[in-house]
Amino acid sequence: MATAAIIGTAGYVGQETLDRVLAHPELELVALGSDTFAGQPAARLDPRLDASIPPFVTNADAAASGSDAIFLCLAHGEAAAFEPPAGAVVVDLSGAHRLTDPALAQAWYDAVPGAWSYGLPELYPPQGRLIANPGCYATAALLALGPLAGVTDGAVIDAKSGVSGAGKSLTASSHAGFVLENLSPYAVGTHRHAPEIAQQLGFAVCFVPHLLPVRRGLLATCYVQTDADVRELLDAAYDDCTAVRVLAEGVAPELSRVQGTDTAELGVFTDGATGTAIVICALDNLGKGAAGQAVQNANLALGLEPTAGLRLSGVLV
Amino acid sequence: MATAAIIGTAGYVGQETLDRVLAHPELELVALGSDTFAGQPAARLDPRLDASIPPFVTNADAAASGSDAIFLCLAHGEAAAFEPPAGAVVVDLSGAHRLTDPALAQAWYDAVPGAWSYGLPELYPPQGRLIANPGCYATAALLALGPLAGVTDGAVIDAKSGVSGAGKSLTASSHAGFVLENLSPYAVGTHRHAPEIAQQLGFAVCFVPHLLPVRRGLLATCYVQTDADVRELLDAAYDDCTAVRVLAEGVAPELSRVQGTDTAELGVFTDGATGTAIVICALDNLGKGAAGQAVQNANLALGLEPTAGLRLSGVLV
Amino acid sequence: MATAAIIGTAGYVGQETLDRVLAHPELELVALGSDTFAGQPAARLDPRLDASIPPFVTNADAAASGSDAIFLCLAHGEAAAFEPPAGAVVVDLSGAHRLTDPALAQAWYDAVPGAWSYGLPELYPPQGRLIANPGCYATAALLALGPLAGVTDGAVIDAKSGVSGAGKSLTASSHAGFVLENLSPYAVGTHRHAPEIAQQLGFAVCFVPHLLPVRRGLLATCYVQTDADVRELLDAAYDDCTAVRVLAEGVAPELSRVQGTDTAELGVFTDGATGTAIVICALDNLGKGAAGQAVQNANLALGLEPTAGLRLSGVLV
Amino acid sequence: MATAAIIGTAGYVGQETLDRVLAHPELELVALGSDTFAGQPAARLDPRLDASIPPFVTNADAAASGSDAIFLCLAHGEAAAFEPPAGAVVVDLSGAHRLTDPALAQAWYDAVPGAWSYGLPELYPPQGRLIANPGCYATAALLALGPLAGVTDGAVIDAKSGVSGAGKSLTASSHAGFVLENLSPYAVGTHRHAPEIAQQLGFAVCFVPHLLPVRRGLLATCYVQTDADVRELLDAAYDDCTAVRVLAEGVAPELSRVQGTDTAELGVFTDGATGTAIVICALDNLGKGAAGQAVQNANLALGLEPTAGLRLSGVLV
Repeated sequence: MATAAIIGTAGYVGQETLDRVLAHPELELVALGSDTFAGQPAARLDPRLDASIPPFVTNADAAASGSDAIFLCLAHGEAAAFEPPAGAVVVDLSGAHRLTDPALAQAWYDAVPGAWSYGLPELYPPQGRLIANPGCYATAALLALGPLAGVTDGAVIDAKSGVSGAGKSLTASSHAGFVLENLSPYAVGTHRHAPEIAQQLGFAVCFVPHLLPVRRGLLATCYVQTDADVRELLDAAYDDCTAVRVLAEGVAPELSRVQGTDTAELGVFTDGATGTAIVICALDNLGKGAAGQAVQNANLALGLEPTAGLRLSGVLV
Repeated sequence: MATAAIIGTAGYVGQETLDRVLAHPELELVALGSDTFAGQPAARLDPRLDASIPPFVTNADAAASGSDAIFLCLAHGEAAAFEPPAGAVVVDLSGAHRLTDPALAQAWYDAVPGAWSYGLPELYPPQGRLIANPGCYATAALLALGPLAGVTDGAVIDAKSGVSGAGKSLTASSHAGFVLENLSPYAVGTHRHAPEIAQQLGFAVCFVPHLLPVRRGLLATCYVQTDADVRELLDAAYDDCTAVRVLAEGVAPELSRVQGTDTAELGVFTDGATGTAIVICALDNLGKGAAGQAVQNANLALGLEPTAGLRLSGVLV
Repeated sequence: MATAAIIGTAGYVGQETLDRVLAHPELELVALGSDTFAGQPAARLDPRLDASIPPFVTNADAAASGSDAIFLCLAHGEAAAFEPPAGAVVVDLSGAHRLTDPALAQAWYDAVPGAWSYGLPELYPPQGRLIANPGCYATAALLALGPLAGVTDGAVIDAKSGVSGAGKSLTASSHAGFVLENLSPYAVGTHRHAPEIAQQLGFAVCFVPHLLPVRRGLLATCYVQTDADVRELLDAAYDDCTAVRVLAEGVAPELSRVQGTDTAELGVFTDGATGTAIVICALDNLGKGAAGQAVQNANLALGLEPTAGLRLSGVLV
Repeated sequence: MATAAIIGTAGYVGQETLDRVLAHPELELVALGSDTFAGQPAARLDPRLDASIPPFVTNADAAASGSDAIFLCLAHGEAAAFEPPAGAVVVDLSGAHRLTDPALAQAWYDAVPGAWSYGLPELYPPQGRLIANPGCYATAALLALGPLAGVTDGAVIDAKSGVSGAGKSLTASSHAGFVLENLSPYAVGTHRHAPEIAQQLGFAVCFVPHLLPVRRGLLATCYVQTDADVRELLDAAYDDCTAVRVLAEGVAPELSRVQGTDTAELGVFTDGATGTAIVICALDNLGKGAAGQAVQNANLALGLEPTAGLRLSGVLV
């Protein structure tokens, strides 16, 4: 049994990480960190958390808990300033340590790359004990395009995400009066996940995200010019992956089948008029796009069962 | 005062056309056709319709009403078989008469082109009295790309539509249990609006539609390679158009500002990483994408005030 | 032509009032007040507002504009402190002047009743030039129950409102991640509209509001014990009202038919098992529940056409 | 290990039952019945079902599979006609066997009561091997009101349900164009769950359901006149129940915390103005309101761990 601490549990990503850690057969939660809730019982966050869960401590106390694994669920700036305790596996769910180019890391996150390794288990398994967990959009785009990196040199990525992707902070664009019965493109051509995707693929991409009127779930529709057999490459890449499912010919991914799970779905199509390859990825921005992948990365670094604690099964309507 | 008849009023498009005709200062509704509701009062369709509205007649009777304008709100197949009465302006809101290439018209709609003219007022004003009203997706894509036809030769069109775009018929993919909290790509690379868009632009496009969990509204994100000044071309094209609004730099279209209206919004961006031009169009699939444009086309053909009867004003939240 | 000023235009209620004033054939907008936007063009609020609309001024300047009608769209506290200019008709869309009992006004709004008259045109026409516009929930409950005030002495009011009812302010309960795919009862048995409803009916009511995952619209299901013929009383009360529609037997109100309008729908039922009378009212919380009713009240006080400027017609899907 | 068969797996309730059976540590699925899908692999229903799940057989074959437990997920009429095989525990998830009064069973379901026992584990544990699983609305109302049956003799139940409550059949009121951004009362004062609730409580209730624009989840707001200490009675009733949670004072139930689970939440309030007791219950109509409760009932009848296979844990956002 390894021990785990969560730092910054009050947000969406922290809560979802807590969900997986509580379900994990090989992780014991020893410190629940939140500067907002320190000193209060876990149920203060959510009435489903009972007295068996440790009460909140400060983030500093959680960091000093001597845990084998630390899940860092802080804002980018706070994560950039975090000092990893010696010996612990640390998974940073923020963007602070994703970009390896110092100029880009500086420009997008005001951060310094340091000794962190990018960890997307199916494609880029984490190296070492400091792991940068990928962005939600980047995870979807990379699952769709990573296996094609050698056979194309450009892509259009049109992505759509539910509102939990932007976190719990109160902004005009997360107000329900703005989101409901709406669809809103944002950060058009200027989103920070674009350089992250490009870094892993090795070529620049055109990336446009849209805010969907759904609570959770993300879908990326990727357009690629290539002569390669795209389905074959994707099938080969994910053949023995339990968390990534390549759908049969003609079947398109949907949010509803991945919401509340740590899985991703991929659909592969060819445009009838132009021959463009179309790869569509659906995942839950809080699951495979955040907390689920973080636990998956920690499992690998700790030498545990790779998908322990994940939400992989079930066929909810 | 010109007279008008609606044929096939029971569906979404028919009802929205009725909405505009009732508000039209220069059109008098003389026949409300529906084979489903023939013989029943208008209120049978909607309790907001009172005794001042003519009761339903059969579609055949509506066609024979001697009206100056006929709005054909039938399914494609029925519209393809419709015999236009001599002398009347007929606006066909189905797809039956949109494709001018006989092979394509046959393949997609089992129809014969005939003497119909494609009418998208701002770009392709209707000629003659038989008018094919554009598809909703096609309207959005063409408003975004039409002014660029001379400066590019390809485009990716990633489109998202509310559920009313598929009409009132009961299908598994229009069931609310499927649509809610979901996003679903469909007809990937094989949608019938793609050849319609290509016909007007003069080059093939890669088109993927997605079903949004909203009642109404459609947004098309269009990706284009060009060296031209895209904003300048769009500004010039829509300079004096009251129904199409090119937004200021940095402002993106949103469904919420066009829902329930007959206007369209265009946003113009350049991708930071790849230089791709991104033009985004939002409109209401039942408004500028169907009924509003049909009335606009009829106005032109009848020589009436071009935007009479349209829903253009208002700043609803 | 009477002149009008809006004070506090930046919120939902202000924007919707602006919508009606711009559409009003007998009102000329002379001052658009907002301390947030003062000095900026109207388009700063919404790109649909063009250069023909007066730019924003401070709320103080709007109040001093000498307008015949002032629409006060401020928070309760600011409205309570507002000094009405001599001679102007002032419609207060906040709650500050709704409660006539000094103790209740103090307790719920920290306000003093003063010389304001409660104005719900169909039931309680405003008296004088200072008008307290009813709350959205109160309007729905009173339209359902006002005509029954003499034949019962209690009611359960179970109400459900879209998120715009709570305004534009950023709160945890208006965050889309909380609202979407959720239903949330709030202020259970303690909402400030309960004393307002009781004041007008003359008896206490049990009132519970719920937050719906919709942008706009409100529905109140009211349960009453009475031997009277409820339908007859409602029909008589609204016989010649253009903004309130009593539906035929067996037809229930729905949000979709009142959204974006200044109308209300009433449905009348009797419970099969207990004989309880059930009256259901649907309206748009920003329309008949706020801005539409405010303009209706101003029309009455100014001697204009009673429903001028209102959104009453149309049969949008 | 007991064996299980599902009959009528193609609908929402069948699919959710399958979800629980697959997760059940003490049940082995031996027959997956569906007359629609017989002969096809399980993945035909949902791509998440892989080759390890038995393929579909006919409902008759599933019934004849000799399973220890049979989950009957058929329409009311088909369930009424079903002949339970000797010896098997049969849980009927339809309404056919819920009403024990022959006249009512006849009137509402065209069924004959027979030897079936109503099973709501926390309040009315099933007796014998033929079990009528409660309705979703009835479950919520009974969890709220069952413990109060001795201290009151009437209640108003205002209920709101997501669209999956009406099943997968294609009807005008389940069309997303009708459901989205809408709220719609239906079967006002005439719903078949009212006599079911009354049967268990021993007194008539006034019950009104509303269709919510959410995929899943149900909330019932119950109004009761009583002098008893309602919270004390509810706390006592559910003290050691893992699937039912009585919330702390001031905390209201919400759909979001019960969606996708087999738990229920109860909130207890007193109206400030009238002293009315208000008990609110939230549950998932497909979980505790259907499939989860069915498995719970089967566990009791088979002598298994009472909550095995249920979705009880997790703190998803």
